[in-house]
Amino acid sequence: MNNYFAIKFSEQSLLYLDQTKLPMQEVYIKTDDYERIASAIERLELRGAPLIGISAAFAIAISFKSISSDHKNHFEKVYKRLASTRPTAVNLFYALDRMKNTFENISDYADTYQILIKEAQAILDYEELCSKRISEIGSNIFTKKSNVLTHCNTGALAAAGFGTAFAVIKKGFDDGFVKHVYVDETRPLLQGLRLTAYELKKNKIPFTVLTDSMAAILMQQGEVDLVITGADRIALNGDSANKVGTYNLAVICNFHNIPFYIAAPSTTIDRKIAAGNEIEIEYRNGSEILSFDGKQITDPDLQTFSPAFDVTPAHLIKGIITEEDFYSFPYNFIK
Amino acid sequence: MNNYFAIKFSEQSLLYLDQTKLPMQEVYIKTDDYERIASAIERLELRGAPLIGISAAFAIAISFKSISSDHKNHFEKVYKRLASTRPTAVNLFYALDRMKNTFENISDYADTYQILIKEAQAILDYEELCSKRISEIGSNIFTKKSNVLTHCNTGALAAAGFGTAFAVIKKGFDDGFVKHVYVDETRPLLQGLRLTAYELKKNKIPFTVLTDSMAAILMQQGEVDLVITGADRIALNGDSANKVGTYNLAVICNFHNIPFYIAAPSTTIDRKIAAGNEIEIEYRNGSEILSFDGKQITDPDLQTFSPAFDVTPAHLIKGIITEEDFYSFPYNFIK
Repeated sequence: MNNYFAIKFSEQSLLYLDQTKLPMQEVYIKTDDYERIASAIERLELRGAPLIGISAAFAIAISFKSISSDHKNHFEKVYKRLASTRPTAVNLFYALDRMKNTFENISDYADTYQILIKEAQAILDYEELCSKRISEIGSNIFTKKSNVLTHCNTGALAAAGFGTAFAVIKKGFDDGFVKHVYVDETRPLLQGLRLTAYELKKNKIPFTVLTDSMAAILMQQGEVDLVITGADRIALNGDSANKVGTYNLAVICNFHNIPFYIAAPSTTIDRKIAAGNEIEIEYRNGSEILSFDGKQITDPDLQTFSPAFDVTPAHLIKGIITEEDFYSFPYNFIK
Repeated sequence: MNNYFAIKFSEQSLLYLDQTKLPMQEVYIKTDDYERIASAIERLELRGAPLIGISAAFAIAISFKSISSDHKNHFEKVYKRLASTRPTAVNLFYALDRMKNTFENISDYADTYQILIKEAQAILDYEELCSKRISEIGSNIFTKKSNVLTHCNTGALAAAGFGTAFAVIKKGFDDGFVKHVYVDETRPLLQGLRLTAYELKKNKIPFTVLTDSMAAILMQQGEVDLVITGADRIALNGDSANKVGTYNLAVICNFHNIPFYIAAPSTTIDRKIAAGNEIEIEYRNGSEILSFDGKQITDPDLQTFSPAFDVTPAHLIKGIITEEDFYSFPYNFIK
């Protein structure tokens, strides 16, 4: 197992690693306040599409610890608060809806807390199984000992188990198919430089970090055999939203004839949307670009363009790996 | 004229704006120590290919202020020191060689200081004229009121006059052809966010900043009509080295069918090299990625890939603008 963890249900509270402080400080926060968890999601102390869902599920469950009346209104209030945290992560709504469904089937409200904790734990267990299956199905992207490039963070800090794309890379390394990992720093919040580097180091996988704009020259030099990232939302036709910069990466892969893959649990597929143009893109506060770790870099009033995500059209994605199967373009996920 | 300047020869010293402190502080440094100027170039307090050349020329000249013997050895020592500062900027060697040529033709060493100052001033005047011509010749890239995207910094802080690509954008704006400017932040040293934003603001040109990896989604949204950058070294076939990330930009322009231009003085063309694969790429210290403004972001020992420049193949460049002419692909610059 890992010598670090993103979240743990412990002593009737959620214990989580504050990812905004990594890698300089490993600060674990213990809370039984759902509002604290909601704001942790908003502030990216907790992040990664699957992990957001799991955290939100626990937040709902924990919020019932000392509720003895008015359960329905309380559920609605907490559900609404958590649903408002990050609009693009479809897994969030998958987890919230599982919790809602469970809640609506409760016959005796006296058991609410125990039942909801059990359901949140079931979501976590299921996501862990998904991670394992994704890493196994993902194995087939390696046809030789490869240099892999990835963007953002998709490891144990983003999902259960060893994560999504990160789990594929880790299994590839364990099986002798990954030689070296290149990590985009992933501006503006540097999840690659801070989090993926942290996880690769913990897992003793050799790696090199670079700024996002350096991936193209690295590919030009022939150093990248394949690219794999996670996804935050996938349309039925395979168009995939992921951390901003992923689309850029897919375009430069296309130019250099380098295969580009996505790994994500099937809960990332939004069965309600046909194509990427229906995906709502979250725009983040410009301060993420204009300041750094609380330090002002430039005039705080500058106008910024700061999408959190971008959408990669399906034709640029060679394969999508879920816990169910390996899919190739053209994609036709079932409604 | 501008309400700021990069360098000025004043009171027998060089007065320069420390660009590493911009935009938070406008600190002008006055020095008559060539070693201080050399290290200012290395530390990027002074930067931009043409400006490096001009600064190096003044450094040589000023170093003779109180030299009364052993002129030849002194020249050689100072020349060598300045030539070692930034290997990729061809303008540096153009300026150094002009100074060398002038020095070798001096008949009475008593006049050395005055003659070399005059030559450095002539280089500055010539570069100013180049900037003006580049802005005029560059006008023809605008066929309608356009949104322009640029990378790094190419204004008065990088070259004489209004710079290179920046001069084209400024004239385009003055003539009513530029609607809005998008500025890549330009990692790792944020010359776009810090310097180009500073210059656009000083010139009252409307602009938006974004991280380098966001340019692709911006293009996908149809917001970019054309891209123009500077160059640090151009091969005879048009392959162009510029700030890392430029090649990435040219690739995504190609994918989105957006014209990509380069503007640079003809001194940027390296007549000794046929193609881009002969361009020596400077690799910078990894700390530029791993720390920020002196603040450690992550483990300082992480392995980094940190090229200062990348080379854009000529076929991705729609036009190269120099003070002499507008050139279209295929390029065949004269040896």
